Order: sequence, then C-alpha cells, then structure tokens
Amino acid sequence: MREQGAVPAVWGILLILVIAGCQCHLTGEERRYQYEIKDFQVPLDHFSFLINATFNIRYLYNDSFVDKSNARTPIFFYTGNEGDIELFAQNTGFLWEQAQLQRALVIFAEHRYYGKSLPFGSSTFNSSMPEHLAYFTVEQTLEDYAMLITFLKNDRQMPVVAFGGSYGGMLSAWFRMKYPHLVHGALAASAPILQFPGITDCDIFYRIATSVFQNAYNGNCTVNIARSWKLFESLGGNDAGKKQISEAFNLCTPLKTDGDLKQFLDYVEEVYSNLAMVNYPYNSSFLAPLPAYPVRQVCFYLKDLHTTDVDLLHAMASALAVYTNYTGSAKCLDTSVSSSADASGWDIQTCNQMVMPFCSNGTETMFRPSTWNFKEFAEKCYKNYRLTPKPYDIILRYGGRNIESVTNIIFSNGLLDPWSGGGVLQAPNDKVFVIILPEGAHHLDLRHSDPADPPSVRDARQKEAAIIAQWIKEF
Amino acid sequence: MREQGAVPAVWGILLILVIAGCQCHLTGEERRYQYEIKDFQVPLDHFSFLINATFNIRYLYNDSFVDKSNARTPIFFYTGNEGDIELFAQNTGFLWEQAQLQRALVIFAEHRYYGKSLPFGSSTFNSSMPEHLAYFTVEQTLEDYAMLITFLKNDRQMPVVAFGGSYGGMLSAWFRMKYPHLVHGALAASAPILQFPGITDCDIFYRIATSVFQNAYNGNCTVNIARSWKLFESLGGNDAGKKQISEAFNLCTPLKTDGDLKQFLDYVEEVYSNLAMVNYPYNSSFLAPLPAYPVRQVCFYLKDLHTTDVDLLHAMASALAVYTNYTGSAKCLDTSVSSSADASGWDIQTCNQMVMPFCSNGTETMFRPSTWNFKEFAEKCYKNYRLTPKPYDIILRYGGRNIESVTNIIFSNGLLDPWSGGGVLQAPNDKVFVIILPEGAHHLDLRHSDPADPPSVRDARQKEAAIIAQWIKEF
Repeated sequence: MREQGAVPAVWGILLILVIAGCQCHLTGEERRYQYEIKDFQVPLDHFSFLINATFNIRYLYNDSFVDKSNARTPIFFYTGNEGDIELFAQNTGFLWEQAQLQRALVIFAEHRYYGKSLPFGSSTFNSSMPEHLAYFTVEQTLEDYAMLITFLKNDRQMPVVAFGGSYGGMLSAWFRMKYPHLVHGALAASAPILQFPGITDCDIFYRIATSVFQNAYNGNCTVNIARSWKLFESLGGNDAGKKQISEAFNLCTPLKTDGDLKQFLDYVEEVYSNLAMVNYPYNSSFLAPLPAYPVRQVCFYLKDLHTTDVDLLHAMASALAVYTNYTGSAKCLDTSVSSSADASGWDIQTCNQMVMPFCSNGTETMFRPSTWNFKEFAEKCYKNYRLTPKPYDIILRYGGRNIESVTNIIFSNGLLDPWSGGGVLQAPNDKVFVIILPEGAHHLDLRHSDPADPPSVRDARQKEAAIIAQWIKEF
Repeated sequence: MREQGAVPAVWGILLILVIAGCQCHLTGEERRYQYEIKDFQVPLDHFSFLINATFNIRYLYNDSFVDKSNARTPIFFYTGNEGDIELFAQNTGFLWEQAQLQRALVIFAEHRYYGKSLPFGSSTFNSSMPEHLAYFTVEQTLEDYAMLITFLKNDRQMPVVAFGGSYGGMLSAWFRMKYPHLVHGALAASAPILQFPGITDCDIFYRIATSVFQNAYNGNCTVNIARSWKLFESLGGNDAGKKQISEAFNLCTPLKTDGDLKQFLDYVEEVYSNLAMVNYPYNSSFLAPLPAYPVRQVCFYLKDLHTTDVDLLHAMASALAVYTNYTGSAKCLDTSVSSSADASGWDIQTCNQMVMPFCSNGTETMFRPSTWNFKEFAEKCYKNYRLTPKPYDIILRYGGRNIESVTNIIFSNGLLDPWSGGGVLQAPNDKVFVIILPEGAHHLDLRHSDPADPPSVRDARQKEAAIIAQWIKEF
C-alpha cells in the first residue's frame, strides 16, 4: 500500500511546479514575449493590525499594445499562480494575442511566496521559522492583486480582465467574485474550484486520467499500467528485482531501499497524471519537452498485452521515456523530487487552505489504490510546517457549488484534463460562461494559437475572445 | 477652534455607543423580545496561520416562530454592530415582526470586541497590550458571521436574510456582497457605506443635520445654535463665565479648565447630531429617553432670536435638556464621555478601517468650523491605540461607489438622517433596491411598527417586507 494523505493531495497542480521549478531559466526559444519586470510593495498581512511589515511582489509589465489616446485602456491581468511568473507569461499566449487585438496593458503578477516574491527573502521557507508561512493564503494574495490594480488604474476608468490557468484560474474566478469593482471579468481556464472536501468525489481526477489513457491508443494501455504496480512491488521486494527495475529504467540512482522504491513509484504515478494534463496536440515544453499527444505515444509502447514480467518492464520503461527523455539528452532517469522553493510552496498551500482530497479505489482506475485520510494528512502538515490545515476555508469563503450570484466569469475545461472533474461544467446563470473543450488538455485554450490546435480549442478561443470583447465594450 | 481629527470621525455612530454603552441593563419595559443567549467559538484570526487561538462570540436565538416541518426555514440574521447585541435586538422590531410573518429563525449575532464577545476577556482593551486590538476588523467580523451561519444551517438549504442598521447595515450590505452563497439578501438600513475618504464630501453629515434643525420649527433655531458657539467661547474664556455656563446648564462638575470647556462643547455638538439621528415620530429611548420629534422640541425653545447672552444661554440650556433630561430625573448634567468598552470599541474601529472624514465649514452649518486632517487623526490613533489607520481599506475591498455587480440588497435611508449623506441613494441595477423615507430618521424603518409612524415609514416597511418575501420565495 502506498502512503496515504499528503502525497495524493499534492498531485497534479504541484507537479507543474516540481518541474516548472526547474525551468526558471527559460531558453531563448521559449521567450516568445517581452516585458519589463517591476516591483510593487504590499503589506505582509492585509487583514490584521498586528504588524506593519511590507515586502515586494514582482509583476511583468508590457504597454506596447496600448493606444495612449484611449482613456479606457483595458488591463489584462494574469493572476499569478504557483511558480515563477515568467514561466506563466511565456505559456499564456492567448492573453498576449488578445492584448494585441484589444490594445490592452499586459500585467502578469507574481504570487506571494513564489519566484522572487518572497516575503522573508531567503529565510521565507526556513523550517526553523514556521511563522514565516502564516501569510501564504489565497486572501492575502488576492489583496496583493487588488492593491496592484488600484495602483495601476490610478483613478482612471479602465476595464480589467483577469486571466488564469489551473490554480491561477481559481484565483481569477475568486478575484472576480470578491472584487467585482476592480475586475470586470475573468477567464478561469481549467480551474478546479470545486475540488474541495465534500463537494467532489476524491477519485474523480484519477478516473479521468485513466480514461485519457484508455482512449489514447487502445484498451491495453491501462491494463498494462494497472498490472505494472503489482510487478513493481513484487520485483521491488528483493535486491535482484530492485536491480532489474533500476536497469530497465536506467535510473541515475539504483533502488536500494523500500523508500527508494516508493519514491520511484510515486514518480511514475505523477508522470501519468502530468501526461494527461499536458496531452497537447503539438510539441510542447510546459512541464517537460514532449511530442504532440504524448499519451498516445506512451500508449503506443503499451499497445500489446504483455504476458511476461520482462516484456512488461521494458515496455513500461519505453513508455515512461516519452515523458522523461523525449529529447534523448538525459543520460539517466532522476526520480528525486525537486526541492525548489516553488514545489515546496504548493505543498505548503495544500497544508493551509488548498486541501484537495485525492483517492483511487484501484479497480476503476489504472492508479494504485489510495484513500483520503485527512487526519494523517493534517499530522504530516503539522510535522512539516507546523500548519493545521483548514479544509473548509475555501468553501466557506467562495461558496463551493453555490455560485448562483457570480457573474462575468468564463470557466473553460478540457474534457481530457483530469482537473476538469473539479471544474465548473454547468453555468449557474447566463452571466457565467462554461466552455467545454472535448479535445482539450489542461488549460490548452490559454496557450498561443498553433496550427495543430484541434477545432474545439480554436472555437473555444473564439468564444472567449468574443465574451472578453463584449465585457470591454460594456464597460 | 475645536480640535481637528479624531473627534469628528467618531461622531454619530460612536455616539450611539456612548449612550448605548450605558444602557446595557435594559429595563423590563424595553425587553419587548425574548431569546436564548448562546456562545459560538470562532478563530481569533481567520486570515493568517500564525495563531490557532479561538474565543466565543455571543448570539441571541429564537426559534419560536419556526415551522418545524419546513426544511427551508428562513434565517433572519442581524449582523451585530457596535454595542451589546441585546440593545439591538430590543430596537429592531421590524425583524421580529417579519420573522413572525415568515416563520423565520431569529439570530442576533454580537460583533467581536463588543458586549460580552471579547477576544481577550477583561484585558481586551488593556492599553498596555495593543496587540489585542489587531483582530478588530470588518473582515474578521464577517467571517465570524459566515461561520455561525454555516453552523446554524448545518448543511440544510435555508435562505438567510441579513438585517442591520447604521454600521450594522454596512455589515449586512458587505456580508451579502462578499458571501452571497450564505446570505440571500440584506436589508441595510441607514448604512453609510459611502462615508469614506474621497468619495463623499466630509461636511455632508453636518449639512444634513443642520437642515433637520432648520426645518423643525422655524429658521431661528439654527441661527441661535450657530451663534451660541461664540458665546460659549467668549464666556468660557474667564472663570466667571465658566461659572455662568456651569450654572445655566446645571453641570454636575463645574467647568474649571479650558479642557473642561472643550469637553462640554464637544458634548453639546454630539447631542445635536444624536438628536437629528433619533428624531423619531414617537417617544423612544434608543440613545436617550426622548419625546416624539425631539428636534422640534429643542427648536421650540430656540424659536425666538435671542439678543442677549443671558437669554441665549438659558434658551440653550432648556433646549439641551430635551435630550439630557426629558424624564426630569437627572439631578445635574454629566458631560463626561462614557468610558465603556463599547464606546472605546468604535473609537478603535475608526482608527483602523472605519476612517470616515467629518468636517464643517462653519458657514453652511450650525456646527463649529472644523477641517478633516488625516495626519493629525492618524497620530492620535497611534498615540491612543498604537494603530495606523488604513483609510482606503474599505473602498479597496467593498468598492466605494462602484457597486454595479451587487445584488439583493435593500438600502433604505431617511432623508432626515444625517448619515443618509453617506448612504446609497441611487440603485446601481434592478437587483438593488433603494428606499427613501422623506420623513425618516436613522434606521427608523428597522424599529417596531408604531401608530405614530409617518406614512413614508409604513410604505417603506411594506416594500421591504415584499422584497424579503420575494427573496425567500425565489430561494
């Protein structure tokens, strides 16, 4: 049995960061978009009067599209999420394309505690100072953004449209809900605002991810993966088997202990989740350099039902390499989890407010069985960060499924995206727009236009553009 | 010149408390309504993860009207404001009358830091522990109420209507704005949500108060009052004059110093503001025992233009006694400001978020000239409470005049109420209802029905009842 609790909750969104954290140094080719990098001072604690401390968050600024004669210039404001803001700027082409069209001011705001927006500098995550983590919340972050927008508008009447993907999309939606006087509308792409305790089944993510693999090539793919866990565990039970696995997967550090085996299996499972999320229709490098429709490639290697352990082992290794070594440049496979601040950042957020239960019953999915155990999860949070999670904070404040009063939000979800299970798939009223991308992976619509985009993504972007244009016109 | 800054900002709403604080022991006659008194545990700080401390707020509970067979029982929830919650329960008859009609559960929630809802017990306001004041904010209070409603609903579908008057009305409006998933609609009576820096003229309160006195009996009333300041100041400049004032007004503590004189003048000015607010059409005892239309009575004593100092002095004394000694039971006039926790509570709130600028140009009003000086005000706040006011906090969060997206709020304002100048007098959309009571004083519509109610108040209550019934029906 795998360990319950903390790990599953971190999956998915966290994984963006584990790898995103490593991509902070963007290569020239990835730098499609240009901007100035600026600082903005914010209070450490917006909500109490205990301390007056401040710190700087970063934001990216580009006014090259702006028509200076237009007093009502739109602001396109990306509500930064769990990572260095430059990464999101480079992977949110739709915002840039629309900004050019609408002659908007482009802002990408960095989320506190990520990138270079660290409230306590290098000691922000120092484990001997857990009090440094106290202000790492959704509400404090939205207040940062509210203050930044107020500053940027400088008393002018400017329509603001918030953009965000994944956790950034959740922030965009919540920003519009709580600050409608500052944000005229929001595009919340692949934003699982319903992935919280008691309002969404905890196995939904793994069920959708499984169906992505089931439909990618042929049905044998998920059968092989489901069977592989038993194989790994029986082989991994002895030294010879550990060696066999290490060699088959060309591990940089051969498995020695049961802990090593566990880390390897966690890693493999994460890769499947990530693959489902970034199953984009063209070569991409958001989480890792990948071919178009990478899940199809993975499942191509698993198209036959393998009857021997050796065959299955080697097929699995080839399949995994689609994700881990598409460029062929990796000398070996490193499964150690990144210790970057960003990855630890999201892990911390799951330990205060972003408590998103995950589980798998092990029969309806290709993943290992796991249960959601809040008590164990909370104990781990306290042990790691001295934090006691508040699992109902988000529902209390943002309403869970009760969003009848919400207006001017686009919720877009790709049905190939495992996160869509926690997304808003039905509009509560005619001022909220739900856009479904049957062929879409995780916030594919936020990315730049590409000739390989499936028609549903092109349609979605067209609808989104029209709604955003209408919001600006209405203003 | 009177002192600028802190005093004016505190006016009006504070004054409810100066006296309300003294009325905590309600007499039998004032106990119109019955309830259980309960406690509810809330986090001290809802918004950071620094501390896990909790404390209890009080709430009043009455389910005697509830139809137990109705799974969708409405909750009528009074968002407690600056004072002991029992006082508001006894002075909000409209809620009780409507609860009976709609078979609603009645809840009056006590505001943290007031009444018996003190986070640090008897040391809450201990000046050597200013850190105790850090969590005394609107947002923390609304979260208390959100948690209490969540607890009361206990996963049932129950429409919640928030009720509040004055600052309590501001809380009701903001509660609906920020927690529409918990609060289906709000009646915000005499809620000056626009009385904040830069969005409303700072002299509006005194101009309206003056016009109430101008129209009460005849035009001489405000002329006499305006002239009295000069008289008080010239008389008060020497010992004989101080004695003369003390005797004319039958002061418990004769004026000795210039500080005494200042306190006396502040008190007199406060009485005028209070009189305008509670200029109710029948005998009442909300702020003090008063006759019907007390301003008319006051102005009756000031109907003649007094040409001698002695005449004017004695006329003023008779006029003031309408407020200070209507029952005739006071042996002398005590102008010392109450030091009750409640009064100090509101003073503290003006020093963190509730920064409401007041000023008077001294020619268009009957009040003394005063300017609004934020710097001096802030210095005083720091000196008194170690607090640095955030004058734009409320506008940042609740939008100031930009409330286009708001729905299901009734803003009612009496045009005789000086606070109406900071109220919402124009509906931003057709889901917000503005009800004007031309003959109404401060949240008169929230009070119990009375045969002496003017037609405009009866009309207003009828409209409010219909809207509330509609909200419940819609739910």
